[in-house]
Amino acid sequence: MMGKRKYSYTERGFNYHARIQFARGIDEDVVPDVKLSRAKDGSDGRAVFYFEMPKALVGETPQEITGMYMIDEEGELVSREVNAKFINGQPAGIEVIYIMRSEYDWDRFMRFMGRYAEANGLGFSKA
Amino acid sequence: MMGKRKYSYTERGFNYHARIQFARGIDEDVVPDVKLSRAKDGSDGRAVFYFEMPKALVGETPQEITGMYMIDEEGELVSREVNAKFINGQPAGIEVIYIMRSEYDWDRFMRFMGRYAEANGLGFSKA
Repeated sequence: MMGKRKYSYTERGFNYHARIQFARGIDEDVVPDVKLSRAKDGSDGRAVFYFEMPKALVGETPQEITGMYMIDEEGELVSREVNAKFINGQPAGIEVIYIMRSEYDWDRFMRFMGRYAEANGLGFSKA
Repeated sequence: MMGKRKYSYTERGFNYHARIQFARGIDEDVVPDVKLSRAKDGSDGRAVFYFEMPKALVGETPQEITGMYMIDEEGELVSREVNAKFINGQPAGIEVIYIMRSEYDWDRFMRFMGRYAEANGLGFSKA
């Protein structure tokens, strides 16, 4: 098919590769667990990411972590609430909190997560 | 706040309760694991649900399982690909396959799953 494409061609095939970065241009390889919660009135939502020993923290190439960037075919979502976790003084993981302030934000986030989950072998299971 | 509400009031609070049923009117209490996959060109998607010892199969009140109904504030999604699993002749679980044929279907399903996940303590983790 040579028609107009909705997806960019990447090394992963025709799906645009939904990805997470801690420094622009460098994909994080470690796939996080993600917990979801939402206010009872449906207004505010929150996702808590935990990356165990991510490349951004323990990789050979030091990264200056400026935020967590969630990138997909629609664009980019950003969180600045990024915290490194240490155990006995050693780097252990990164926790990121992403806050959503509206139904629109939540739906947009779920579109990203659906793509990211599928691309990275995440499923839904009991937190 | 006494303004116009977007959500129905239910016993769970102001969020409309996203739920799964195997027989109309009877909520399934057991929360499944869900695996996601998608064709490389982004067209077809698939979700595989596994319910361990669900009420619909092993509960005290027999249910005639007519499909899996995923119900939320937007309406209802249905799968008819529902299979009971038996181990040594005893009921063990229910596996359900839900097929999506378009980007629209996938996004709609992710909106349901986001609501269901949040309401039932599901998060994203490695399948």
